[in-house]
Amino acid sequence: MTSLPAGNVSLALLHYPVYNKHREIVTTAVTNLDLHDIARSARTYGVSRYYVVTPVVEQRALAERITAHWQEGWGATYNPKRQDALQLVKVIPALDDVLHDLQQRHDRRIRVVATGALQRPGALSYQELAKLCRQGEEHYLLVFGTGWGLSDELFARIDHVLEPIEAGTGYNHLSVRSAAAIILDRLFGR
Amino acid sequence: MTSLPAGNVSLALLHYPVYNKHREIVTTAVTNLDLHDIARSARTYGVSRYYVVTPVVEQRALAERITAHWQEGWGATYNPKRQDALQLVKVIPALDDVLHDLQQRHDRRIRVVATGALQRPGALSYQELAKLCRQGEEHYLLVFGTGWGLSDELFARIDHVLEPIEAGTGYNHLSVRSAAAIILDRLFGR
Repeated sequence: MTSLPAGNVSLALLHYPVYNKHREIVTTAVTNLDLHDIARSARTYGVSRYYVVTPVVEQRALAERITAHWQEGWGATYNPKRQDALQLVKVIPALDDVLHDLQQRHDRRIRVVATGALQRPGALSYQELAKLCRQGEEHYLLVFGTGWGLSDELFARIDHVLEPIEAGTGYNHLSVRSAAAIILDRLFGR
Repeated sequence: MTSLPAGNVSLALLHYPVYNKHREIVTTAVTNLDLHDIARSARTYGVSRYYVVTPVVEQRALAERITAHWQEGWGATYNPKRQDALQLVKVIPALDDVLHDLQQRHDRRIRVVATGALQRPGALSYQELAKLCRQGEEHYLLVFGTGWGLSDELFARIDHVLEPIEAGTGYNHLSVRSAAAIILDRLFGR
């Protein structure tokens, strides 16, 4: 147990398997700001760990270089707040590796919750998920997709779906960085 | 009046006058993702207009090129959702120009609300500002700073300050993109 608002929660940003705009399953590229922005949001709400997930070796090396830059030497001295956030980041090949790592770290059942822009049957509300996370009996992994969103094959493997962010305008094409920030705030912000 | 959740609200992202990490007043550079992410968040919540403010001619030209790319020709066809969001963007030299433009567009008093990470006396709560915006008698401009935040000289010129985003961890170094998303959701998301 932890006293941090989101201490029973980790995040995973998946670069595969996700859709492109033609609904083909692709591997997207790691981007600098996905690492920084989501790490800073994760740190703000007290998230346990932020997994950056890609099967591509070179992309993992790039992500490691970015996080190392701010954790060692010049970057760490220049901006310790970034170091503080980026130490939550773990770069890893696949969702199975995330689950394995979480199982090692938390001696509790791991529940996987997919996020996305589509309405799906049986989705948890923010209140329901916040309550489950507060109970602290299980550790919750919130999974975010890059590109045009997580593939359907991934939805077949998870425990829960979180309801999409709706604001009543009919437009819900937030960046994954903005969506992650809003979801953390809805779950743990008050 | 409008039926959009944030129809009585505009946003301004200021690249001057803002602090750098040494608390010197500087002009920051326009970044691609500040334009995209905040435009997409603004569109999601039905914000009236999103002003990108910089006194530097070349930086305004860059911002105009980015928004034009997605509004005309190839970019608009490739991703109409971006076009939809970026048409809210107006690139402009200074806060006075923003106020002048807003006065032309809205025949109502304009109220300027500064956002930031510091606690300041007399700050409005999210509930208070949401209520004011819903009343629709005045148009509200939410001002965001880049770099290390809006300068004190700017705070002397505004009508209200919005309370910072606090999550109980003592860390509040969100990116401006994430902060804008969370603030819009707190004000208009439910």
